[in-house]
Amino acid sequence: MTVSTLCIPPDRLWRRLMQLAEIGQLGRSGVNRQALTALDLEAKQWLVAWARTRGLAVSTDAIGNLFMRRQGRVAAAFPVALGSHLDTEPTGGRFDGAYGVVAAMELLDALDEHAVETDRPIELTVWTNEEGCRFLPGCMGSKAYAKPDLLTAMLQSSDATGVTVREALEAHSDGLPDLPLRPLGQPFAAYLEAHIEQGPVLERGNFAIAAVSGVQGRRLYEVSFQGVSGHAGTVPHPLRHDALQRSLPFLQALYDRAADDQDIRITPGRLVLEPNSPSVIPSRLTLTLDIRHPSNIELAEISTWLRSLVPSGSLASVTIEEIDRCDAATFDRYLTEVARLACARLGGSVRPLVSGASHDAHALASFCPTTMIFARCQGGISHHEDEYASPEDLAAGATALGACLMAASRVQAVGEVAGRKGAIGP
Amino acid sequence: MTVSTLCIPPDRLWRRLMQLAEIGQLGRSGVNRQALTALDLEAKQWLVAWARTRGLAVSTDAIGNLFMRRQGRVAAAFPVALGSHLDTEPTGGRFDGAYGVVAAMELLDALDEHAVETDRPIELTVWTNEEGCRFLPGCMGSKAYAKPDLLTAMLQSSDATGVTVREALEAHSDGLPDLPLRPLGQPFAAYLEAHIEQGPVLERGNFAIAAVSGVQGRRLYEVSFQGVSGHAGTVPHPLRHDALQRSLPFLQALYDRAADDQDIRITPGRLVLEPNSPSVIPSRLTLTLDIRHPSNIELAEISTWLRSLVPSGSLASVTIEEIDRCDAATFDRYLTEVARLACARLGGSVRPLVSGASHDAHALASFCPTTMIFARCQGGISHHEDEYASPEDLAAGATALGACLMAASRVQAVGEVAGRKGAIGP
Repeated sequence: MTVSTLCIPPDRLWRRLMQLAEIGQLGRSGVNRQALTALDLEAKQWLVAWARTRGLAVSTDAIGNLFMRRQGRVAAAFPVALGSHLDTEPTGGRFDGAYGVVAAMELLDALDEHAVETDRPIELTVWTNEEGCRFLPGCMGSKAYAKPDLLTAMLQSSDATGVTVREALEAHSDGLPDLPLRPLGQPFAAYLEAHIEQGPVLERGNFAIAAVSGVQGRRLYEVSFQGVSGHAGTVPHPLRHDALQRSLPFLQALYDRAADDQDIRITPGRLVLEPNSPSVIPSRLTLTLDIRHPSNIELAEISTWLRSLVPSGSLASVTIEEIDRCDAATFDRYLTEVARLACARLGGSVRPLVSGASHDAHALASFCPTTMIFARCQGGISHHEDEYASPEDLAAGATALGACLMAASRVQAVGEVAGRKGAIGP
Repeated sequence: MTVSTLCIPPDRLWRRLMQLAEIGQLGRSGVNRQALTALDLEAKQWLVAWARTRGLAVSTDAIGNLFMRRQGRVAAAFPVALGSHLDTEPTGGRFDGAYGVVAAMELLDALDEHAVETDRPIELTVWTNEEGCRFLPGCMGSKAYAKPDLLTAMLQSSDATGVTVREALEAHSDGLPDLPLRPLGQPFAAYLEAHIEQGPVLERGNFAIAAVSGVQGRRLYEVSFQGVSGHAGTVPHPLRHDALQRSLPFLQALYDRAADDQDIRITPGRLVLEPNSPSVIPSRLTLTLDIRHPSNIELAEISTWLRSLVPSGSLASVTIEEIDRCDAATFDRYLTEVARLACARLGGSVRPLVSGASHDAHALASFCPTTMIFARCQGGISHHEDEYASPEDLAAGATALGACLMAASRVQAVGEVAGRKGAIGP
């Protein structure tokens, strides 16, 4: 049978999410299931048990990612991958990551239940350590898959107790014995991921779901303003060099720009004053500046603009240092258009969103044609026990992801047939 | 002999300061001689030894203040007191406090050396625990002297190791045996104090010394701005409630007012952001606001003005709380005019300063006619090992203080003769 749409009902998807949330349950509705812990393993065992009932071929790789493969009509065709992650933050919710995995389970079930034979193999993927809260970096599994050169350093990363990723993976593989090991970096025809939005835009727009056209780039700066300390009572203002005062025009210019550009995000999240004593003039102010934008060109321009905000001649006592950088990614235009039309048809947003947070799809976007679907989450709250998304919205997102899956799984749309890489055409 | 001016040369004054600085010497040029420690006692013993060579009558009181009395021609007249304190900060300098005591020693020596007989008795006073770094409150001795009701609570004040003022005083009096105990609050005709400026105004104006017309009042506020935390990547700016952003117009208005009013001092010295994480929108900003002004009326108006800066309707999420208050004091007009003329004659500033820091004279200003002389201090640096004032400037300040002493010690200028209190007339 061939279908153009797989319709995912909410009930079973929700039940599975709630089952999964019991593994590492925290308080009333939270989850603490950090990467490569016994609870993370238990969640994977639960998933593998399901995969075996479905006859899927389960394998793993050197960074502990899981793959559950459903064969396609064209055995040599690159598979379409879809999935997310099972690890959570220490005080995480029930939906971040788990939703993308359960949505993929539902789609594979629906293919079986409707006896659909796809051209391409379909692989449910579970990426190791997306959150990055136990081991750095986050999106570890998807990054290592897309860029295997990163593996060696990642295996040496250690958690707060000194356990390395290598050690944690060994314990993990004992709990999932007999899984064939496959190489990192095996080609995908496409990668698809459903996720809760983790922001308030869909709720404010009254939309259940939306396509995602890419992930913002991020630059993290540390900015410091040097002043001169002094007695709060004895030093007249014309003789002061108050570091806090010096920073105000700079900060105001940032917020003014944020008000003028709907695509930018500017967050001075951490601010430290020295000596931070009630009766001493501030001698130093240090702040982090998290700046995000969907365009890498804009991010480069913003970097220049930041430096232009510092009054000339005062550069010696104001420093702006880039301390982290993650380039923006644009998702595949064709797949995102399929996602956009599917969302619109299901009552979602006609306009794709740009993801403000990073996801495994961000790491894979440079590896293969990729797109995402976002489902509305209540109050925009995530990484928190109160994280919530409705069964209906989540089911609509899975259904929209199914439209992408059906489009991507047709062989005529496949890059590898034409010898092109990373270009699924219509 | 009667003289109108006592001229204090720099040499002996400087030698005495350097001798005193050896008691508690810290590093190259610092002093750590905290209140009611063995070192503080040693400094007092050094001073009492000098007083005995001069035939001064030494006494103490219930809070450990020291009095060294030189008799006057009119035995029943209220004495003129002059002095300062011998205790220092843990990382203090050689001049703060010590200068006022040594200047008084020099003046008493000069009276003897010139065989001057004053109408009034003269008392060199050493006030206990001016700094307030070991025991709270600061200016303890002068406050208790002016307001004896405060004594009971002060005796119970304890240091970081649990030692109370009462216990420390007992050890102290063992080291200064046989001193007669006099009541707190015995009237003074006047109180005079020389001190280093502890600020940069004289240095900037190229003046060695200045009269002091009063001490600023101080209000300490805690101001908090409440926002809503959120993900730095996912929450668009129009939906943000960034506590740091909310605080900017308020902070800017403070600095604008400080630029417009040369008598005000506004210091947002401590600022804490929450959760203070690079990728989280600030949910709360709390800052202390130290505001000083020579006029209590202005300080009351500023308090109202502060609240007017909060946008109407947002009061619920901005709080302004007064957490400490110290009223302004105006020094005696006649004595300050004498001091001003003396300073001008000696090449000092024609314009009196208002003290930004508090001093024992602040506590005594409501008790008797009071004035102060400030001497220039290098870079405005105080409470620091690098504190420095030149021998010449310190001698000029002592000479100017001498002019005040000669004016105040004449009986025709005395309040108690006319039955008036606190009003020395010309």
